[in-house]
Amino acid sequence: MFEITNPLKSISRRQPRGAPSGEADNPQSPVLRLPETEALALDSGVSLAPLQIAYQTYGTLNAARSNAILLCHALTGDQHVANTHPVTGKKGWWATMVGPGKPIDTNRYFVIATNVLGGCMGTTGPAATNPATGRAYGLDFPVVTIRDMVRAQALLLDNLGIEQLLCVAGGSMGGMQVLQWAASYPERVFAAMPIATASRHSSQNIAFHEVGRQAIMADPNWRGGRYLDEGVSPTKGLAVARMAAHITYLSEQALQNKFGRNLQNRDAHTFSFDADFQVENYLRYQGSSFVDRFDANSYLYVTRACDYFDLAADYDGSLARAFQNTPTRFCVISFTSDWLYPTSASRAIVHALNAGGASVSFVEIQSDKGHDAFLLEEPDFHATTRGFLSAAAEARGIGHSATEAA
Amino acid sequence: MFEITNPLKSISRRQPRGAPSGEADNPQSPVLRLPETEALALDSGVSLAPLQIAYQTYGTLNAARSNAILLCHALTGDQHVANTHPVTGKKGWWATMVGPGKPIDTNRYFVIATNVLGGCMGTTGPAATNPATGRAYGLDFPVVTIRDMVRAQALLLDNLGIEQLLCVAGGSMGGMQVLQWAASYPERVFAAMPIATASRHSSQNIAFHEVGRQAIMADPNWRGGRYLDEGVSPTKGLAVARMAAHITYLSEQALQNKFGRNLQNRDAHTFSFDADFQVENYLRYQGSSFVDRFDANSYLYVTRACDYFDLAADYDGSLARAFQNTPTRFCVISFTSDWLYPTSASRAIVHALNAGGASVSFVEIQSDKGHDAFLLEEPDFHATTRGFLSAAAEARGIGHSATEAA
Repeated sequence: MFEITNPLKSISRRQPRGAPSGEADNPQSPVLRLPETEALALDSGVSLAPLQIAYQTYGTLNAARSNAILLCHALTGDQHVANTHPVTGKKGWWATMVGPGKPIDTNRYFVIATNVLGGCMGTTGPAATNPATGRAYGLDFPVVTIRDMVRAQALLLDNLGIEQLLCVAGGSMGGMQVLQWAASYPERVFAAMPIATASRHSSQNIAFHEVGRQAIMADPNWRGGRYLDEGVSPTKGLAVARMAAHITYLSEQALQNKFGRNLQNRDAHTFSFDADFQVENYLRYQGSSFVDRFDANSYLYVTRACDYFDLAADYDGSLARAFQNTPTRFCVISFTSDWLYPTSASRAIVHALNAGGASVSFVEIQSDKGHDAFLLEEPDFHATTRGFLSAAAEARGIGHSATEAA
Repeated sequence: MFEITNPLKSISRRQPRGAPSGEADNPQSPVLRLPETEALALDSGVSLAPLQIAYQTYGTLNAARSNAILLCHALTGDQHVANTHPVTGKKGWWATMVGPGKPIDTNRYFVIATNVLGGCMGTTGPAATNPATGRAYGLDFPVVTIRDMVRAQALLLDNLGIEQLLCVAGGSMGGMQVLQWAASYPERVFAAMPIATASRHSSQNIAFHEVGRQAIMADPNWRGGRYLDEGVSPTKGLAVARMAAHITYLSEQALQNKFGRNLQNRDAHTFSFDADFQVENYLRYQGSSFVDRFDANSYLYVTRACDYFDLAADYDGSLARAFQNTPTRFCVISFTSDWLYPTSASRAIVHALNAGGASVSFVEIQSDKGHDAFLLEEPDFHATTRGFLSAAAEARGIGHSATEAA
């Protein structure tokens, strides 16, 4: 499955690293540029302006503007959900899920995805040029929260003239945004699908993120966050961060099934520190390829946003209060082998929704693939998604194609 | 519990780093120095000489030489089991377990512990001076295996005049040595206690170790392993490695109970990358303090030895064959919340022992402390150890004190 034999030496450089231009400022996707006068008020107290929001859309908005689905991406995802990625040349991260005839059927729905605030694919973030200095923001970019990300998405919807979403859906950090959407803008969310997520980051979640941040900041090429100005890049630190995180995305069983103790193109141990084992080679590849498409400072910011996420804390410690009398219908989804955001975290969300009087269904998908299951071909998961969206569409009087009369 | 407020800036330097002298060559413990002529034949094919083995003993060897217990340490442990550690000034890693009247009762047993081959506390390893060059071995040190570590321990026992051990015991990597002892020298092991361990490293185990190694090797101060010669030290990389590993030593529940989302000496998020959360501060402290007592290259070697460990592979893939007709009595111990070497790994050992016709008892200790439970106050674990050793001692006709007639 993995044919790269010496990945650390075969890093491809499809776009220059260490430059604040490229996708961060001028994304290869639609982008909303708000004027300096329309600042975004952040949880930190900072007013961020000017703001730009990079996004993608798929399908057609119907006449009633009622068939829009917002998809929220995970930590290192982006707006390129179902098209070829402009940097990696690979398929979008949810290409299996989104498209004509697929569970999120673009013949029927108008799908929107944004790059999150603090990201590096065209929505304002630390790799973007700070107009005040003409250089990349770096650590001058304010620390943002999941709620700030959602605020930026709401601004985009305002500009697109979409009052209410048929559904907001997403996994992992995307699921946090889904929960925040339902809490912040209940009237704008007809249906919500938080997947493989949690209403707050656990101590272990924070711990893994902190390891990643420390790995980046330990890299001397990080330069206190000013690497873009100095023409270098903390690629080694970022690769180590990605490797550590990647282990948490797979279940122990998935790693065992996929790699076990199999050796990498050799018959015996080399008694060295080469990548003797396939799993080592795989991790090195994950680290090496990641640094081609992701900004190290952005990684600091998105992990921090997750760590700060604790939805109940904004409602006097009561998660149920966040969803009190919510009009939104929910489908909460977890995967049995996900140990990053385990089923227990989804159950806690379901309990709070029940206590808040919400309409909620809960589906735990049997899978040995771990957290990443939400990105993979999981027939039960896809069927659940298709069914939940279809029921929501029917309840909203949406036809089977976007051009059909509602 | 953790009072260090800014640990990354408060690293104490009790002994100079970056020098091949100190504990690696001249340990503050007894040391066996073998002549150049007595080389150790390693699994890699290399003959290692001269060899020195640093060790500690507690209690008194009885006249019959039948009351010796060998304790094998985990990844970053050492021979300082129950005395004040000469570098950290802290209590030995098993001070709760070993001593007069304690479960491993030094009034009754003669306890021996060695620093493992490849370690950095006085047994020959990469931080030791290579007599061929007068400089530290660094990566010129051969990659060693768990079996090599056990071979070195057997040499020490030969020199101490101990033919048979009453028991060999250890947790984690120490448990691997226990299994290897029983397989390699069944007649020398009356009883064996492998604790919180596995007969082979899983794909996930290897993956976590590889992250640690990559973190070290990504540190420019690692200098291709030659940092000791160059007067520098890859402390940042080693600290990151330790942080990542440390998460695997605790259960998710233990982290949640200990730290949850508690903030570190502050009332609110700082919207920065400071250690806002106690768990971040704790991890940074673990990383910072570790680099004061451990050699980065040694970390590469001991993790590699674990990754290479697959006892069944040496017996045509049959773990049962490793223990066929073994005379040794076993007590296999696991902890319910240990996700690094989970109960299933211990069960696999028990099944193989049963298939091999061994005398074996298996105890799964209820604990929410994770892998580290074997180092902590766990009354059921301590009682199990005391009972198993006592029964073994009685079967060997050992009295209640070492000076009592056997």
